[in-house]
Amino acid sequence: MKATNDLSRLCVHTQTTKPWDLNACITAYHQAGIQHISIWRHLLENQNLKEVKSELEKHHLQVTSLVRGGFFASVSKSKRQEAIEENKKAIEEAAALGAPLIVLVCGADPEQGLETSREQIKEGIQAILPYAQSANVRLAIEPLHPMYAGDKSAIVSLGQANDLAESINDPFVGIAIDVYHLWWDQDLKQEIDRCGKHNNIFAFHVCDWRTPTLDLLTDRGLMGEGCIPVKQIRQWVEAAGFQGPIEVEIFSERLWKQNQTEFLEKIKHAYIHYT
Amino acid sequence: MKATNDLSRLCVHTQTTKPWDLNACITAYHQAGIQHISIWRHLLENQNLKEVKSELEKHHLQVTSLVRGGFFASVSKSKRQEAIEENKKAIEEAAALGAPLIVLVCGADPEQGLETSREQIKEGIQAILPYAQSANVRLAIEPLHPMYAGDKSAIVSLGQANDLAESINDPFVGIAIDVYHLWWDQDLKQEIDRCGKHNNIFAFHVCDWRTPTLDLLTDRGLMGEGCIPVKQIRQWVEAAGFQGPIEVEIFSERLWKQNQTEFLEKIKHAYIHYT
Repeated sequence: MKATNDLSRLCVHTQTTKPWDLNACITAYHQAGIQHISIWRHLLENQNLKEVKSELEKHHLQVTSLVRGGFFASVSKSKRQEAIEENKKAIEEAAALGAPLIVLVCGADPEQGLETSREQIKEGIQAILPYAQSANVRLAIEPLHPMYAGDKSAIVSLGQANDLAESINDPFVGIAIDVYHLWWDQDLKQEIDRCGKHNNIFAFHVCDWRTPTLDLLTDRGLMGEGCIPVKQIRQWVEAAGFQGPIEVEIFSERLWKQNQTEFLEKIKHAYIHYT
Repeated sequence: MKATNDLSRLCVHTQTTKPWDLNACITAYHQAGIQHISIWRHLLENQNLKEVKSELEKHHLQVTSLVRGGFFASVSKSKRQEAIEENKKAIEEAAALGAPLIVLVCGADPEQGLETSREQIKEGIQAILPYAQSANVRLAIEPLHPMYAGDKSAIVSLGQANDLAESINDPFVGIAIDVYHLWWDQDLKQEIDRCGKHNNIFAFHVCDWRTPTLDLLTDRGLMGEGCIPVKQIRQWVEAAGFQGPIEVEIFSERLWKQNQTEFLEKIKHAYIHYT
């Protein structure tokens, strides 16, 4: 595999540079030659979305995805309904920004079994699907690592995400493949192939798994800092038909402490050499 | 399911009451009416194993397992050889104590792929198998949670452990099923059935998964404190033919800070009501 300096498919998640507000992300990503951004929703609070859209356009940044919807599972029916309302709001925001995709962290509730949570996730996606279709915003189920099965996602493998997406069987519902969550799975290549065959690879997220990992949430590594075969997985995903942006999504107390402009240069380097 | 006060199958791992040394564990478990103990090897350093065995007998404690062997995977051939030597030593210790079983934490090396680590694990087990057979000590492969795939175990599902045990196909090689590592797996029941059909369920470990889990290593819960369907999984394991001791293996900074005698009473309560 040849390393080039081509950054045309590099996308950065705003949460990767968490110390920055949205304007700082937009300005800095543009200055660094990055053309794609995935926006975390909390940064949109109290913002005029038309102005945000205009800033994005001014800086030649395309929105890859809005992060994140989901959290459909709960023992409480009213909470499940609240989640559906919140997802409709996310769809409106995505449409307003011209974001083609919302990433769904599907949710789990420790007070009930994973099977029940999975049923509620399916019901939730089906409930918001008409809104997504009419807004022309696609929905990407993101299977999370099994260490989040307790409270964040009852979908913990690409196989389960494939099952769910195929059971809904709609061009607006697909999958976000994140190497951090899925690298350990012996069936990964086969499930990526399956995902591609059903045209369900909607997004591809990269980072790395550090050893030791010191925190369940905020100790991800830059590509090349860990043991995930990122290049191999990218090759599988592309062989299965995906040619969209490669999204760098890193949560790291360690990296957030660094100068974020310099960190962005490290991201570019890691994207070019280890992705 | 009827709750009884029958403790005859309760086993406690010495690491569960980490603040205690081996003598304290032996005395306290006996006083609490516990009849089974799993011993962590570091507690045997500088001990006379004959005396330990005599103390165990005096306190009517049967050793369920010696914990732990394994760590077979490494890019370094000399480290792999060292691991084999260390495992032979563990087998000798187990035989000296009358422990019928060694739990294997199989290992992984972040410098190489999981496939390679799994091949080395198989080679390691095959290398020590003749020693285990002649010492009459069985070997239990313990699949770990995928969050340990980076450096502790390339075997991260019961399906993989079943594959490995069946490929070695020897009555001295089986599996330790730990609810903490495996509860999230959609295929768990089916793989437990398969494990039972091959007479490969050698051990059963219980604890619970807390939400949120604050640490990757030492934030396990007492049965009933988390979201694992412990009773359900125990029922599957027993339906698949397992009738051995139920081993309580909890690593918890929170619980280690408590009075360990009182903690042992809580373990008994959790065993009776939530296991």
